[in-house]
Amino acid sequence: MKPKAAVVGLGFVGRAHVEALRRLGVIICGGLGSSPGSTAVACGALGLAPAYASLEEIASDASVDVVHLCTPNFLHFQQTSQLLRAGKHVLCEKPLTLDSRESELLVSLAKDTQRVGAVAYNLRYYPLCQEARALIEKGAIGRPILVHGSFLQDWLLYESDWNWRLDPKLGGSLRVVSDIGTHWLDLVTWVTGCKVAELCADLATVIPMRQRPRGRVETFQKTDPGNAEPVAITTDDYASVLFRLEGDVRGVMTVSQVSAGRKARLWFEIDGSEGSLAWNSEEPNTLWIGRRNAPSQELPKDPELMSEATRRYAAYPGGHPEGYPDTFVQLFRDFYGYLEAGDWQEPRSFPTFATGHEQMVLCEAIERSAQERAWISLGGE
Amino acid sequence: MKPKAAVVGLGFVGRAHVEALRRLGVIICGGLGSSPGSTAVACGALGLAPAYASLEEIASDASVDVVHLCTPNFLHFQQTSQLLRAGKHVLCEKPLTLDSRESELLVSLAKDTQRVGAVAYNLRYYPLCQEARALIEKGAIGRPILVHGSFLQDWLLYESDWNWRLDPKLGGSLRVVSDIGTHWLDLVTWVTGCKVAELCADLATVIPMRQRPRGRVETFQKTDPGNAEPVAITTDDYASVLFRLEGDVRGVMTVSQVSAGRKARLWFEIDGSEGSLAWNSEEPNTLWIGRRNAPSQELPKDPELMSEATRRYAAYPGGHPEGYPDTFVQLFRDFYGYLEAGDWQEPRSFPTFATGHEQMVLCEAIERSAQERAWISLGGE
Amino acid sequence: MKPKAAVVGLGFVGRAHVEALRRLGVIICGGLGSSPGSTAVACGALGLAPAYASLEEIASDASVDVVHLCTPNFLHFQQTSQLLRAGKHVLCEKPLTLDSRESELLVSLAKDTQRVGAVAYNLRYYPLCQEARALIEKGAIGRPILVHGSFLQDWLLYESDWNWRLDPKLGGSLRVVSDIGTHWLDLVTWVTGCKVAELCADLATVIPMRQRPRGRVETFQKTDPGNAEPVAITTDDYASVLFRLEGDVRGVMTVSQVSAGRKARLWFEIDGSEGSLAWNSEEPNTLWIGRRNAPSQELPKDPELMSEATRRYAAYPGGHPEGYPDTFVQLFRDFYGYLEAGDWQEPRSFPTFATGHEQMVLCEAIERSAQERAWISLGGE
Amino acid sequence: MKPKAAVVGLGFVGRAHVEALRRLGVIICGGLGSSPGSTAVACGALGLAPAYASLEEIASDASVDVVHLCTPNFLHFQQTSQLLRAGKHVLCEKPLTLDSRESELLVSLAKDTQRVGAVAYNLRYYPLCQEARALIEKGAIGRPILVHGSFLQDWLLYESDWNWRLDPKLGGSLRVVSDIGTHWLDLVTWVTGCKVAELCADLATVIPMRQRPRGRVETFQKTDPGNAEPVAITTDDYASVLFRLEGDVRGVMTVSQVSAGRKARLWFEIDGSEGSLAWNSEEPNTLWIGRRNAPSQELPKDPELMSEATRRYAAYPGGHPEGYPDTFVQLFRDFYGYLEAGDWQEPRSFPTFATGHEQMVLCEAIERSAQERAWISLGGE
Repeated sequence: MKPKAAVVGLGFVGRAHVEALRRLGVIICGGLGSSPGSTAVACGALGLAPAYASLEEIASDASVDVVHLCTPNFLHFQQTSQLLRAGKHVLCEKPLTLDSRESELLVSLAKDTQRVGAVAYNLRYYPLCQEARALIEKGAIGRPILVHGSFLQDWLLYESDWNWRLDPKLGGSLRVVSDIGTHWLDLVTWVTGCKVAELCADLATVIPMRQRPRGRVETFQKTDPGNAEPVAITTDDYASVLFRLEGDVRGVMTVSQVSAGRKARLWFEIDGSEGSLAWNSEEPNTLWIGRRNAPSQELPKDPELMSEATRRYAAYPGGHPEGYPDTFVQLFRDFYGYLEAGDWQEPRSFPTFATGHEQMVLCEAIERSAQERAWISLGGE
Repeated sequence: MKPKAAVVGLGFVGRAHVEALRRLGVIICGGLGSSPGSTAVACGALGLAPAYASLEEIASDASVDVVHLCTPNFLHFQQTSQLLRAGKHVLCEKPLTLDSRESELLVSLAKDTQRVGAVAYNLRYYPLCQEARALIEKGAIGRPILVHGSFLQDWLLYESDWNWRLDPKLGGSLRVVSDIGTHWLDLVTWVTGCKVAELCADLATVIPMRQRPRGRVETFQKTDPGNAEPVAITTDDYASVLFRLEGDVRGVMTVSQVSAGRKARLWFEIDGSEGSLAWNSEEPNTLWIGRRNAPSQELPKDPELMSEATRRYAAYPGGHPEGYPDTFVQLFRDFYGYLEAGDWQEPRSFPTFATGHEQMVLCEAIERSAQERAWISLGGE
Repeated sequence: MKPKAAVVGLGFVGRAHVEALRRLGVIICGGLGSSPGSTAVACGALGLAPAYASLEEIASDASVDVVHLCTPNFLHFQQTSQLLRAGKHVLCEKPLTLDSRESELLVSLAKDTQRVGAVAYNLRYYPLCQEARALIEKGAIGRPILVHGSFLQDWLLYESDWNWRLDPKLGGSLRVVSDIGTHWLDLVTWVTGCKVAELCADLATVIPMRQRPRGRVETFQKTDPGNAEPVAITTDDYASVLFRLEGDVRGVMTVSQVSAGRKARLWFEIDGSEGSLAWNSEEPNTLWIGRRNAPSQELPKDPELMSEATRRYAAYPGGHPEGYPDTFVQLFRDFYGYLEAGDWQEPRSFPTFATGHEQMVLCEAIERSAQERAWISLGGE
Repeated sequence: MKPKAAVVGLGFVGRAHVEALRRLGVIICGGLGSSPGSTAVACGALGLAPAYASLEEIASDASVDVVHLCTPNFLHFQQTSQLLRAGKHVLCEKPLTLDSRESELLVSLAKDTQRVGAVAYNLRYYPLCQEARALIEKGAIGRPILVHGSFLQDWLLYESDWNWRLDPKLGGSLRVVSDIGTHWLDLVTWVTGCKVAELCADLATVIPMRQRPRGRVETFQKTDPGNAEPVAITTDDYASVLFRLEGDVRGVMTVSQVSAGRKARLWFEIDGSEGSLAWNSEEPNTLWIGRRNAPSQELPKDPELMSEATRRYAAYPGGHPEGYPDTFVQLFRDFYGYLEAGDWQEPRSFPTFATGHEQMVLCEAIERSAQERAWISLGGE
C-alpha cells in the first residue's frame, strides 16, 4: 500500500514538499504550521485538510506513514526523535540537526526503530546532477583530480535583511556553511563518490550588526526597516574551504549570502584526468563536458541523450526545462519507492540520515578549522 | 465549490496536465487514453482512478466540471463540441482545431452553451513572459518597432523520425506552423498586444519521404527503423514568415523541426523605441533587457524584481529555476480561478477559444501565402 | 618584393586598415583624409608620414602598389577606377559601389588593367568563420538545409543619431542592407558555398525623420543635438529577407540599426541534415556545433582543434581571444600573399570585386522585392 | 623623440610584443632569438631586420631605448640587470624573476640607473578590466567585501605535455602560481586597490611524472610522444589560495593547468557591499555588474558606455570585439607614453618592477604556506 504523508512546516520549502507529493499522487493527511493561526492560513491556501493541532497529533495518527519536517533547524532533532519513536519514517530538511552528536543519535535511533530517514539534499535530483554522477562512474572524465565551485546568494546582503537562520539558537552556530555549503559539499562528494579527508576553512561575518524586525520573516522575503532592533551577528555570511577528498582529489568551495546579483547559484566544476564537468543550478538544464583534444560539449537535459540509468530522472523531453520544484518530485519518488518496496537491507539511493550526519561532521570541522586557522583531518570518517 | 477535472489523452502532455492539476489541488475524477488498454496502463502509472471507458462516460459524469483535451488535433473539434454540449468547460491543447471554420464554430458553441473554453498556449505562463508583457504595457521599452525570433526543434530531423503529427489527417495540413509556430505567434502578439495585420510566408518540407513505423509512436520518442514503411510527407518541416503587426510593427518568425541541437528553443526579441526584450524558452529564468545608452540588463525570475502584477506567476524565489511543468500550473490557476469566480463577463487573462481561432486564421493565411508566394492581409481580423 | 600600400580615408575603419598593415609589416607610404586638415591630424595621430595631398598624388606615386579605400560609398567607383587605371591594386571597403552597373564596370576594368581588386568583407576572416566553411566542405553537418540569423546594431536608434550613411547620395539608396546586410549575405553564402537563387524582402524606415547635425560625424559616434536640422529619411533602418539558396537551401536574414542593446551582433545558424553550426560576432571565439543524437559542441578558436586548412587563421593559442582588428590582418595576409605570388590565374581566397558585384546585385533585388512586395529571382546570376 | 625598441625572445609572446609595437608605430631596431638559427628564422617570418647576434649587441646599440624581454624566466634577472646598466628601459615578461631577492635588486637597480622598468601584466589592459577598476574607485559596488575566481588552462593535462616551464631551473620552483596565478593576483589587487595581507595555500603536482621530449617545445604546442624521456615533476599543476586583502576583504583563487576544456580562462568576481563585478578573459568584451534590488547588468566594451577615464582603452566601438593581442597595445601605449613624457616623478599607471617584486613576494608566501600548511602574513609588505 502507498505510504501516506504529513508535512510539518508550511513556509517556502514546506509548500515545495506539498506540491511534489501531490505530483506523485502521495496522499497528504494534513499539515502543521508554526502556530494554530498560521497552520490554518497555510492549509487553506494549499488546500490541505485536515490541519493538525500539534506534532503529537501527527505522531499518533495511524494513517500517517511519513512525516516531512520543513521546520527551523533547531527543531529537527527533537521532532525527528519523537516521530521515529512513534513509528513514522521521516524526511527532514537540511541540515539534519544542530550538531553531530544529535545527528549521530538520529542515525542510531532510526536503526533501532527500524524507520527510514532521509534528508532533503534535493539538488542531487537535478537530472543532470544524476547524469554527472553516472558519467564519472563510467569513467567519462577519467579519474577526478580537482573539484571547485561556489554557492552564492544575495538575500542577506544588507544589514536590514533578516531571517531566523541568522539566530544561532534557531539555525545553529554556522549559517552559510550549514544552509548552502552542505548542499554543495553533499553534491560534489556524491557526484564524485569521494568523501572529504581534510579541510582548511576561512569564515567571515561580513555584516556584524543587523536589524532584526519584531515580526516573523519568511525565507527569501524582505523586511520592513521601520520596526527593527540592532542585533550582533555571529554566524558566517561567507566561507571558503580548501579540501582534499579521498584519493587525493583537491578542491575548494566558496559560499556566500552577500554576493549581489547571485540569487541562488550553485556552481561546480570537476576536473578529471580525461575531461571536466561543470554545472550551475541557475541554468540546470545543461551540463558542460570539457575536453582537451576535442570541442567541449553541452549535454542538454534530454532523456534521449542521458545514460540508461539516469534518464528516468528527466521527466520531460529535451528542450522542456525542469527546475527546482522538480527536484523534490524525483527525490520523493526515490524515497517513497524505497518505502513501498519495504526491504531496509536494500542500498538507499537517496540522501539518508547518515548523509545528514556526515554533513554535520563536516560543518564542525569547518568551524574548528576556521577558529584554529589550521587544516583539520576528517580521519576515520 | 472547486471545479473538478477529467483528462482525455494521457501521452506526454496529458501527464503534464495531470501533474499541474494535482499541484493546484484540483480533484481529477479520472482519465481516458487512446484505448482501454492504454487508458488502464496510463491511469495506473499516474495513480489516476477510476479510468473512464469513453468520452460519453465523461460527458455524462455529473461530478466533472472541466475536461482537459490532450488528444491528437483531428479529435479536438468533435470532442470539444460534444463536451460543451454536455455542459463541460473545456481546456483544449493547441491547435484548437484543424481549420478556422471549426474553431469559429467552437467559439460560437461555447458562447451558446455558456461554457468557458481555453487553449493551452502555456508558454505565456513562463513568469518572465508575463513580465515581458507587463514591461511593454508600462512603456519600459517605448513603442515596439520590431519583433523577431524562432522556435526550433530537432526531433524530426531524420527521415526515420515519425509522429502522428506528420499525417495531415491527424494533425492538419500544416505541422511546424500549427504545432510550434502558433505558440510563437500567440506569445509575441500577446506580449506586444498587437495583432498580425499581414504576412508573407515560405514553407518547406525538407524531408519529403519518411519511414512510418507500423506501431504507435509517442511524441518526442524515437522509432524502430526495422518495422517501417515509406510515406510521402506534405506537411511543413520549416517555415519563415515576414509579418506586420498592427501599429506598423515589423517582424519575422522562423520555425523548424529539423534544426540539430535545438531541442525546443523558442526565442523572441522585441525591439522598441527605447529598449529591447529578448527571451529564450530553453533558459526561461532570465529576461534580457537591451539598452542603447546604458548597460543592458538581465532580469531574473525573481518575484522581488518583477512587476507588482506579475510576481504571483513566479512561484519560487529568485535563483530557484522554474520550467515547463510550472507553466501549466500558472495557466490552470488562472483558468480555474476564473471558473471559481463564475462571472463570464469578466475579462479572461488566459488564452481562450477566440485565441485558438485567431491562430487558426493565421495558419490558413500562412498556408495561402506560401502557396501564392505573396503577402496576405489579415484585414478585418 | 613586398607590395607597399597607401590608405585613403582615415576614419574608424581606415585606422583598422593601418594597424593591420603594420602588424603584417607592410610598408605604408602614406595616408589621405577627407581634407588637408583632417589628413594632417589623422596622419599625425597614426604616425603616418608623409601625408598625401590628393588621390592623384597617390595614383602617380610609383612606390605605391596597393591602395586601401576607406572612403564613403559614393566615392568608391570613381576612386577605384582612377587607381586601377593608374596601375594600382585596390582593396575597397564594402559596399563596392552604389549600384551593380558600377560594380560590373569595376570587375571589367580590373580585368582589363590586370590589377587585383578586393572588397573588405573582413568578417569571413574570423578564424571560426573560416572553420565553419571548412566543416561544411568536409560534410561535418551533412547537406545544408536552412540558414537563418541576423545582424543587429543600435547606433541609429534615436532620431538624433546621424551619419553620412543616412544620406542616399553618399551611402546609396539602401543603408542597413548594404552596410551590414551584405556582410551577412556574403558570410553565409561563402560559408555554405551556395549562392542566392531568389528572395523576398521587407524593408522599413523606422525613423522617418532625423536630426542632421551641421558638422561632420564619425561612424559610431553620437552627435550634439543642439546644432541640427530635421531631414526626411528614405533609407532602411530594418530589413528581413526570405531567400532560397541554390540547392533548395531555405533561409531568412534580419538586419537592423535600431535594436537597443545590440552593438554590432552578427549571428548565423546553418542547419544541415546531420548537424548545425551557429556563430555570433560579439562572441567570436566559439563556434556552436549542434547535434541531434549527441551532445552539442563548443568549438573554441584553438588552432589545435581547428582543421588543417584553417588553423593558420588563428594567430594565437586557444583561450587567447581574437577580435575585430584581427580579421583585417588575416584578410590582408591572404590578399598580399596573393599579390606577392603574382599569378593572377590562381584562385582567389579573399573577397574580390566579383564578390562586391554579387552583393550589389543582391541589394538591388532586395530593394525591388520590397517595392514590389514579391519574390524576385536572381536567375542567371 | 619616440623611443625605439628591441625584442629579445621571439616565441609565442615575443611575436605578440612585435605586433603591438608595430600597431603603435614604435620602431623596432631588431630581434634576438634563442640561437642564431632561430633568430634568423623568427626575424625573417616577422619581417624584422636586422637581427641581433647577442644581448651585448643590443646593450651597446645606441639607437635602442627600450628592450622587451620575452625570454624564459630564469634569464630575466641577468638580462634585465645587464640592460639597465647599459642604459636601456626594460619591459620584462612575467614573472619578473625567480625569487624576491632578485626582484628587489632589480627595483633598486632601476632606481639607481634612472631607467624605467615594466612587467607585462597585460591582462589589466583589457578595456573592461580598466573599467572594473574605475567602477570600484567611484564606488559603483560600494566597499569590496569578497574576491573569488580562477585561472584555468588545460595545455598541461597529459603527462606527454611538455614545456620549459615544467623545469624549475628554467621557470622557477612554482609554475601554475607564478605563470598564471600572479596574473590573477595582480589583476584583482589592482582592480580593488587592496594588497594581500595574509594567505593560506594548497598546491598540488597532479602529474608527478611527465615525458620530456628531446627537442625544444613552443609554449601551447603539443609534443611528439615518440622521442621523450620520463622526468619527475616538482612544480605545481594546481593551487588554491585563501587570502585576506587589506581592509578585511576575503577571497580565494584557484589556478590550474590541468582543467580539460579551459584553454586560458581567467575569471574573477568581486562582491561589494552594494553590487558585484564579474569578468572572464575568454569572453572579455562583457563585464557583469550584479545587483540585489535591480536587474543585473551586462556592460559591453563600448567606449560610449565606459567611464571618461577608461574609454580610451577601448580602441574600437561597441560590438567590435577586442582580444588578447589588443591588451599589449594598450599596455605599451601607457608605457611608451610615460617614456616620451620623460618625467620619472609622475605616477606610473602600468605594472612596474615594484609590481613584479610584489608578485614574487606573494609567490614565496604561497610556497611557504603550502609547505607549512599554515596561514602566512605578508605583514609589512
